Amino acid sequence: MSAGDVVTPIRQGLGFQLSYGDCDAVGIAYFAIFYPWMERSYSTWLYAHGIRSGQMSEQLGVYTVGLESRCRYVGMCRVFDVLNTQLVLRHLGTTSFVVACEFRRDGELVAVGEISFACRSLDHQKTPMPPALLAALNSLPQARD
Amino acid sequence: MSAGDVVTPIRQGLGFQLSYGDCDAVGIAYFAIFYPWMERSYSTWLYAHGIRSGQMSEQLGVYTVGLESRCRYVGMCRVFDVLNTQLVLRHLGTTSFVVACEFRRDGELVAVGEISFACRSLDHQKTPMPPALLAALNSLPQARD
Amino acid sequence: MSAGDVVTPIRQGLGFQLSYGDCDAVGIAYFAIFYPWMERSYSTWLYAHGIRSGQMSEQLGVYTVGLESRCRYVGMCRVFDVLNTQLVLRHLGTTSFVVACEFRRDGELVAVGEISFACRSLDHQKTPMPPALLAALNSLPQARD
Amino acid sequence: MSAGDVVTPIRQGLGFQLSYGDCDAVGIAYFAIFYPWMERSYSTWLYAHGIRSGQMSEQLGVYTVGLESRCRYVGMCRVFDVLNTQLVLRHLGTTSFVVACEFRRDGELVAVGEISFACRSLDHQKTPMPPALLAALNSLPQARD
Repeated sequence: MSAGDVVTPIRQGLGFQLSYGDCDAVGIAYFAIFYPWMERSYSTWLYAHGIRSGQMSEQLGVYTVGLESRCRYVGMCRVFDVLNTQLVLRHLGTTSFVVACEFRRDGELVAVGEISFACRSLDHQKTPMPPALLAALNSLPQARD
Repeated sequence: MSAGDVVTPIRQGLGFQLSYGDCDAVGIAYFAIFYPWMERSYSTWLYAHGIRSGQMSEQLGVYTVGLESRCRYVGMCRVFDVLNTQLVLRHLGTTSFVVACEFRRDGELVAVGEISFACRSLDHQKTPMPPALLAALNSLPQARD
Repeated sequence: MSAGDVVTPIRQGLGFQLSYGDCDAVGIAYFAIFYPWMERSYSTWLYAHGIRSGQMSEQLGVYTVGLESRCRYVGMCRVFDVLNTQLVLRHLGTTSFVVACEFRRDGELVAVGEISFACRSLDHQKTPMPPALLAALNSLPQARD
Repeated sequence: MSAGDVVTPIRQGLGFQLSYGDCDAVGIAYFAIFYPWMERSYSTWLYAHGIRSGQMSEQLGVYTVGLESRCRYVGMCRVFDVLNTQLVLRHLGTTSFVVACEFRRDGELVAVGEISFACRSLDHQKTPMPPALLAALNSLPQARD
């Protein structure tokens, strides 16, 4: 599946305008603010697919743990810039996956975040992703690199 | 002027969906998260009126200082609740003003924040609000209580 | 009991140095950052008294809800300022209380926060504070005003 | 130079106790909270060496830009855990460097963050780190891996 094939009716991005609380003392978007926006994009997208990431154990009999997060800063962002997020599937393994979150301003990429998740059974062993989670992940555009 | 008279083409509210990062360990919206949303509502609304609150000195020859902030919690909010903000003018004095921010979920009030500002001249004395700021404030609905 | 009578071996304040993430685009401490520090001061102080505010239902058979929070800004704080917090008891009613948190830099008051709590029974009715919570609150210095 | 050779009188770590605001709806430390703590550790450590990272242009005639940040999660952290940070030098190039921040609870590693910085001249070209910054970086323990 390529990004071009994807037709998803489920909103999988957010738009927001940077405000003073997002910016540091030199007027640039604070490096850490991208992480909560990644999580908001991811969690609300998953919720739109019927999955509450905090209650996967009850819902799907497995849970996911965050192994790593990262963000690469491509362009400087300033107060009142309007950013949009777009989730893409970076990696899909058997028991783990990586979701990226692209931040764009007027279409221009300004930052790319990633969160790596592992899937665990209720007795804390590596376990394959359940069908509902796989279906949601497969609905995402795939990363081009 | 009553709220009913106001016709403003400028968006003065925000909609957002609570995510895990907004909620504390007991699953309820963390009490402090309302403050950055108030500021985002206020700053982006003021910016839509052509005023950058961090550069008022250069723009308008005065600046504002926050004297006090507060938030009253009316209803419990949980992860994935969708909240909307609405700014209202609570008080308009000669050299100071209070802007409130109402948070609603499906129309129901869940929290009310306030920020009190004072207007200062460049030599740090109390000074009346300049016309551009007054015009923006007067475009807000007025608080009913 | 007056503040002068209090001899408490339990640390009830925090020291921290403001960093870039605490400051906004104009180099001043962002107004909202005081709230999480209030909560950290309060929750860790209560924990030092053996009470987990998120598990009071299980521990004490009651729970507390935050009714209101507020912060008054007295002095400007800038990046790298070192602030200390001090909790004081502002009000002690039968079923509610207000804890204030004074922020000082080199002894000088720069901000005063408050959180108002109400005590609720497990069936969500107003209820008196249990002895363990009362004892902890009574160990705090009392507000002078 | 190995970590064993380092004798630094400058505090280069922070201790803090996780509170409710640091934890998400399932009671685990929220993945994003480690980033502001990294920055606080780094900025206050650099400040203790006489360098304000937001004013390097004025102080040293160069500035640094964050290229990437990341955090690997090794152990689960919960509310009231006491964490300590330790900065280590992960990579020192000619015009860039990577500082890691190890988070430990009772000596046990629970998370490792990293921030990659590039050094830029005032006309925004790659430029070598100035002596004062190099000296500070060389005073850090070096990463063992």
